Amino acid sequence: MFNGIYTPVLTPFTRNETIDYEGMAHNLSRWAATDLSGIVVLGSNGEFVYLTQEEKEALAAFCISHFPKTKKVIVGTSCESTLETIRFSNRMAELGADAVLVLPPHYYTGSMNESVLYQYFTDVADACPVPVMLYNMPANTGLNLGSALVARLSQHENIQGIKDTSGNIVQLAEMIRDAAPDFAVFAGNAGYLLPALSLGAQGATLALANILPQECCRLMDLFHAGDLEEARQLQLKMLAINHLVTRGKGVSALKTAADLLGYTGGIPRRPLVPLQNEEAALVADTLRIYGALA
Amino acid sequence: MFNGIYTPVLTPFTRNETIDYEGMAHNLSRWAATDLSGIVVLGSNGEFVYLTQEEKEALAAFCISHFPKTKKVIVGTSCESTLETIRFSNRMAELGADAVLVLPPHYYTGSMNESVLYQYFTDVADACPVPVMLYNMPANTGLNLGSALVARLSQHENIQGIKDTSGNIVQLAEMIRDAAPDFAVFAGNAGYLLPALSLGAQGATLALANILPQECCRLMDLFHAGDLEEARQLQLKMLAINHLVTRGKGVSALKTAADLLGYTGGIPRRPLVPLQNEEAALVADTLRIYGALA
Amino acid sequence: MFNGIYTPVLTPFTRNETIDYEGMAHNLSRWAATDLSGIVVLGSNGEFVYLTQEEKEALAAFCISHFPKTKKVIVGTSCESTLETIRFSNRMAELGADAVLVLPPHYYTGSMNESVLYQYFTDVADACPVPVMLYNMPANTGLNLGSALVARLSQHENIQGIKDTSGNIVQLAEMIRDAAPDFAVFAGNAGYLLPALSLGAQGATLALANILPQECCRLMDLFHAGDLEEARQLQLKMLAINHLVTRGKGVSALKTAADLLGYTGGIPRRPLVPLQNEEAALVADTLRIYGALA
Amino acid sequence: MFNGIYTPVLTPFTRNETIDYEGMAHNLSRWAATDLSGIVVLGSNGEFVYLTQEEKEALAAFCISHFPKTKKVIVGTSCESTLETIRFSNRMAELGADAVLVLPPHYYTGSMNESVLYQYFTDVADACPVPVMLYNMPANTGLNLGSALVARLSQHENIQGIKDTSGNIVQLAEMIRDAAPDFAVFAGNAGYLLPALSLGAQGATLALANILPQECCRLMDLFHAGDLEEARQLQLKMLAINHLVTRGKGVSALKTAADLLGYTGGIPRRPLVPLQNEEAALVADTLRIYGALA
Repeated sequence: MFNGIYTPVLTPFTRNETIDYEGMAHNLSRWAATDLSGIVVLGSNGEFVYLTQEEKEALAAFCISHFPKTKKVIVGTSCESTLETIRFSNRMAELGADAVLVLPPHYYTGSMNESVLYQYFTDVADACPVPVMLYNMPANTGLNLGSALVARLSQHENIQGIKDTSGNIVQLAEMIRDAAPDFAVFAGNAGYLLPALSLGAQGATLALANILPQECCRLMDLFHAGDLEEARQLQLKMLAINHLVTRGKGVSALKTAADLLGYTGGIPRRPLVPLQNEEAALVADTLRIYGALA
Repeated sequence: MFNGIYTPVLTPFTRNETIDYEGMAHNLSRWAATDLSGIVVLGSNGEFVYLTQEEKEALAAFCISHFPKTKKVIVGTSCESTLETIRFSNRMAELGADAVLVLPPHYYTGSMNESVLYQYFTDVADACPVPVMLYNMPANTGLNLGSALVARLSQHENIQGIKDTSGNIVQLAEMIRDAAPDFAVFAGNAGYLLPALSLGAQGATLALANILPQECCRLMDLFHAGDLEEARQLQLKMLAINHLVTRGKGVSALKTAADLLGYTGGIPRRPLVPLQNEEAALVADTLRIYGALA
Repeated sequence: MFNGIYTPVLTPFTRNETIDYEGMAHNLSRWAATDLSGIVVLGSNGEFVYLTQEEKEALAAFCISHFPKTKKVIVGTSCESTLETIRFSNRMAELGADAVLVLPPHYYTGSMNESVLYQYFTDVADACPVPVMLYNMPANTGLNLGSALVARLSQHENIQGIKDTSGNIVQLAEMIRDAAPDFAVFAGNAGYLLPALSLGAQGATLALANILPQECCRLMDLFHAGDLEEARQLQLKMLAINHLVTRGKGVSALKTAADLLGYTGGIPRRPLVPLQNEEAALVADTLRIYGALA
Repeated sequence: MFNGIYTPVLTPFTRNETIDYEGMAHNLSRWAATDLSGIVVLGSNGEFVYLTQEEKEALAAFCISHFPKTKKVIVGTSCESTLETIRFSNRMAELGADAVLVLPPHYYTGSMNESVLYQYFTDVADACPVPVMLYNMPANTGLNLGSALVARLSQHENIQGIKDTSGNIVQLAEMIRDAAPDFAVFAGNAGYLLPALSLGAQGATLALANILPQECCRLMDLFHAGDLEEARQLQLKMLAINHLVTRGKGVSALKTAADLLGYTGGIPRRPLVPLQNEEAALVADTLRIYGALA
C-alpha cells in the first residue's frame, strides 16, 4: 500500500485566518507535478488542530478532488475519542481518502498504556473502510508507540504502516525487523531519511517535501541507485533547512519558505504567529545557501 | 472572584457511551448540598476532550441550569485555536457560566513559547465576557505556565486566577508572591492542598472533591481555624485515595469511587477503559481504610 | 537523631584552587554562633566531587575538630561503589562524624532499580558505625528515591533520616506518612521549608543556611510557635535569594553571597566558574532587597 | 587518528570483587586477535566509576602492556574537576595511552552550560600530551554535547574525535557536517552502526564488540564494500543481543554473555548485581538465536 515520498501539506490561511482555497489549489497543482507518491491532508503541518470539523471535511474534500487520482491522498483523522476517530475516518473514506493517518489519543497521557493504545488502534482499524497508517509523534503527543506495540498492531490487516517522527533510529530499525512483512515503516522527518532508508524504510512523509519535493525524492532515488556518497552529501545538505522548518521554527517557518519558493504559504492560525523579520531572513538565507533560492 | 473548594465534575456515561444526564443531575444535587464553592464543568476529569462541541454545549447548559445560583459554575473552554477558544468562551458566557477555565494550547509544544502564550491568553481574556482562570496542567499538556508568565497575565483585569496542577510547590509560592493582589492561586490537586494553603493559596479545584467534597472543605476549614495538626493528619490521610483517583488510575478510578460512594460515576468513554476487578477492589479497600465506605 | 536546621557547608578555595582552611575556620566559627543544629561537610554545596580522597579526609577532620561538640557534623560519604562508600563512611566515623549522608550511586542510572538501591543502602548501613541519612537529589543524580523505597529503608535501625531535595512535596508527604516513627524527613531546599514543616518535616538541610542561618532557623521557630502568617511572609521573602544560590546560579552564587555577607566564599573549583560581574551584581541586589546587605 | 571499530573493554572481577588480571589478560589476547582497531580502557563498560585511583592506574598500565602496539589503547580519564582530569590524563599518557576519552563533568548538571563545557574540554586538551576524544553519554550524565559545541571543540588541534552514545542520529549527522575535516565521529552503540556509517561516521566504539568483535568489524566492512543489503541484515540481526548487553541489562548482561562466549566476564562490582537465572537464560537464548552460541 505505502511507499515513496509523501508530504503532509500545509494549510494556507488568508490575513483574516480563513482557509485560502485558491492558494491550496495552486500548491496542489505544483505537488501533483512532482515525483511525490502522495500527500497527507490534515497532518501536523496542516494545522489540523486549528480547524473545525466543518473546515476539516471541506478541506479534505477539496484536496481529494484537486489532486491526481494517480497519486494517493491520506487524511489525518485523529480525534481523542474512539467514537469520533471512527466516525471521522468513515467520513473521509466516503469522500475518497485512500487511507487515514491516526495519532494515539494523548490528553490522558498517564492512562494511555500499551493495552489501551492497542485496543484503540484495533477498534479504529476494524471500523475503518480504508487502510490505517499509525502516526508516532512523541514531541507533540508526549507518547511513544514502541516497536513491540507497533509489531502487534502490524498484524492487523487494515493497519498497513507507520509514520515515525520520533527520531529514535534504533526503534525504527526494530519496527522494520518486527513488523508484518507488508507493513510500511516511513521516516517522519527528512533529518534521518538516509539512515532510515539504509535500514529498509519503504518511504517517508516529510514536511520538507512541501517546499523541496524533488530533492526529497532525489535522495530516495540516489539511495536506491546505490549512489551512497551522493545521497550522503544530499542528506547533510538538507539538514539545515529541514531543521528550520520542522523542530526549529515549525509551521510558521515552513509557510515562510513556501511563500519564498512560489507556493502559497500564507500565515498560520493563532496562537501560532508568523515569523519575525530576522527569522524570515534566516529562512531565506538558508534557502539561498541550499541553492533553492536565487 | 475565586476562593474556596471547587470540583472539576466527572461526566457519567451510560453503557453505550452516551452522557447520563440523569446521573449528572443526581451528582449535581449532591454537590449542591456540600460546602463546595462551585464546580468546574468540562475539565480534565469531565473527559472534555471526548465530547463533541454539541455535547459540550448541552452538558454545560445542563449543569448551569441544575446547579444552585448561590454557587459558581466555571466552564472549561480550551480549544487549540485562539478563534475557537474565544467563540466557545463567549457561548458559555451566554449560557450563564460564571467564569471559564483555559489551558494553554499545546499541540505545537515547541512553538508555544512565553510570548505566544501571553498573547493567546490576552486575546482570549480581552474577548471573553466573564473572568478567565488559567489552567496549568503540565502532565497532560507538556507545557508549564511559569510564575513569571503568570505574574504578567495576572495584571490583565479579566484574568483572575490559576488552577495549578503542576505540583511544583516552589512555583506555586512564586505565583502567590508575584501575581496581582486579587489574583487567586488555586491548588489543582488534593495531594498538596495543605502546603498550598500554608503559602496563601485562596482555594483549590480538586478531583477528589467529586467524591469527598466535605473532607476537602474540612481541610481548608481546619487550616483557617489554626488547627494545623488536625489539618496535617487529614492531609496525610487523603494522600492514598487522592493518588488513586488522580495520578494513579485517573478518571476511571474516580468513576469507580464515585459509584461506590453513591454518586453516578458510570464508565469512561473509549479509549479510556473501566477499572479491572482487582483495581476496583483496591479503590474500595482504600475508601474503606479512609473510612468513607463501610 | 536528626532535627532542626543544618547547612551543607561550602568549601572555600583560594585563587589557585587549594582549600582555604583559614576561611573555613572563620566560617565554622560563624555557623557555630547560630541556632543551626549542625552542618553537613562534603555535600553538594561543598563541591565534594571536586575533592580528592585525601582532601576529603583532611577537610572533614578539620571541620569536625573546629565545630562545637554541642552541634552535629554529618559527612557526605557517597562513592559509586558499595565498597568505597563503606570504607569512607568508616573512616569518617573514626574521625568523629556524627552521621553520614549518602546519595544513591547513579552513574549506571538504568541499572539502579529499587532492588539494587535497597541493597546498596542496606549494605552501607549495616557496615557503618554511625547513623546514615539518605540523600535524594534527582536534579544531580537523575535518580529519585521514591516514598515506597524510603519507607522500606526507614525500617533499618541505622538509617535514620532523609534529606529530600526533589521538591516533590507530595512525595515528601508520603515519606512522612510511611516512614518508621523515628525516621526524620528533612527538606533539602529552603524554597519549600514551610510547606514541608506543615506536613511534619523534622528539619531541613539548606544551602541558604550557609549565608542566612538565623533566618532559616527563624522560619522554623515561627512555624512551631504557630505564627503562620509571619512564617508565610518569611517563606515568600526567602524565595528569590534562595533560588539564586541554588537552582538559579548554584554554588558560584552561594560563594559570592557568602563573600558579600562576611563569610569566606572564595572561588569555586574548575570547571565551575565564578559569577560574572552582572550576575554578582544581581546577587548583591537580591541580598539588599532582602535586607541582608546594606 | 581515529577510525575503525573499538571496544570499551569490561573489567572482570573475581568473587571477592577484586580485579581478575588473569581473566583480563585472556580477554586482551582474544581481542588482539581480531580486526578491532583498538580498545578503550576505563570506559563505562569497564565500571571505571567503581575503581579507585590506584586500581585505575594499575589496570590501564596492565592493558597497555598486554595489548599489541599495532593497535590503539584509549583510556577513559574523566574526573569531575578540571585539575584531576588533567592530572590523570597526563599520567595515562606517561603510561603509554594513545589517547584519552573524556566525559563532560556532570554532577552540577545545571551549571554545565556550553561555555563551561567548552572551557573544560579546552583546558584538558591544552594540557594533555595525547589526543582527546570527547564522550557524549547523556543517559548516564544527564548532559548532551550538542553539535554546535562539538563543532567548536573540533577546531582544537588536540581534540580529534567524539564517541557519541546519544542515539540522536540527526545530531550525529550535524556533527559530521560541522566538525573540522579530520575530526572523527564515532557511533557509541551498535544499535545504529549502519545508520551512522551511512552518514559518514569514521568508526565506532561498541560494547557489543567485547563479545562479537568480528561481527562488528564485518558490518563496517560490508558497508565499505557496498554490500548494503547484507549490512542491513546484519544490523537488524545485531539489535536484540546489543540491546540486552547495553540499554537492556547493561554491564551485568555483557559479563554474562562474555562468560558464555569464552571470555572472562566475571561478576560486576556492587552495587551492580549479576544477572538472575532467567535473565542469564535470556542472554544465552539470544546468543543462540544469533548463532554465536551452540
